[in-house]
Amino acid sequence: MGFPKISLLFLLIFLSINSYSQESNPDSSQSKMMVRIAAIEIDSSYFNEYIAILKEEAEASVRLEPGVICIYPMFQKEHPTQIRLLEVYANKEAYESHLQTPHFKHYKEATLKMVKDLKLIDMNAIDPESMPDIFRKLN
Amino acid sequence: MGFPKISLLFLLIFLSINSYSQESNPDSSQSKMMVRIAAIEIDSSYFNEYIAILKEEAEASVRLEPGVICIYPMFQKEHPTQIRLLEVYANKEAYESHLQTPHFKHYKEATLKMVKDLKLIDMNAIDPESMPDIFRKLN
Repeated sequence: MGFPKISLLFLLIFLSINSYSQESNPDSSQSKMMVRIAAIEIDSSYFNEYIAILKEEAEASVRLEPGVICIYPMFQKEHPTQIRLLEVYANKEAYESHLQTPHFKHYKEATLKMVKDLKLIDMNAIDPESMPDIFRKLN
Repeated sequence: MGFPKISLLFLLIFLSINSYSQESNPDSSQSKMMVRIAAIEIDSSYFNEYIAILKEEAEASVRLEPGVICIYPMFQKEHPTQIRLLEVYANKEAYESHLQTPHFKHYKEATLKMVKDLKLIDMNAIDPESMPDIFRKLN
């Protein structure tokens, strides 16, 4: 009768150590990160309007949502209607919750007629552990 | 005779104020920034080898070169031979000097046979002023 109880105790200790080490290990939290390049083509007649809405949306997402680690919007110098966004979310849940925010919904609705093409390309960061170093100089 | 000297004094004061405000104004330094996406296709048989060399080069560049603000390497989850790098240099001079470093030259030489295609796409950051905010969460 004593044996199952001790096993259960060990199992609980094992589970809590395991859960602790997963949380405190930065590699583990970074492996859950969603990294993506959004490749968007817009109608040139809406360029200024689109850029203003996107800029506002990216800024609000990073400021208001702890799980939105980075939304970095760019356009190609030679083809300014070709928009690219580097997006990094803490995990899938952070991304799902981002889709439900008023600022994202506003962006989506307001730019619907401006977007001619949208590709969402899932990426793997090659060196996620060094990410803090990589972006250190921006601060 | 006194007039030209006073003019010269004002000119010097003006120039030094102007130079100071350019340095302390983040918009000004950020407008010189070079932002680029490198789109690289590699030979799949070299995948692990290429990734190791690229990771080392990106890490060394950011650590050793103050003008290399960010090199963030990724690959497409669905097509891992499709490599993408987000590169940010402080200015054109920083980029030119990067090309002369031993770590860049080593990368270039060692991966020459592995690279099937390379496109360097110049980008404009849509909101360069908010960059420090955008990447704040990575630290």
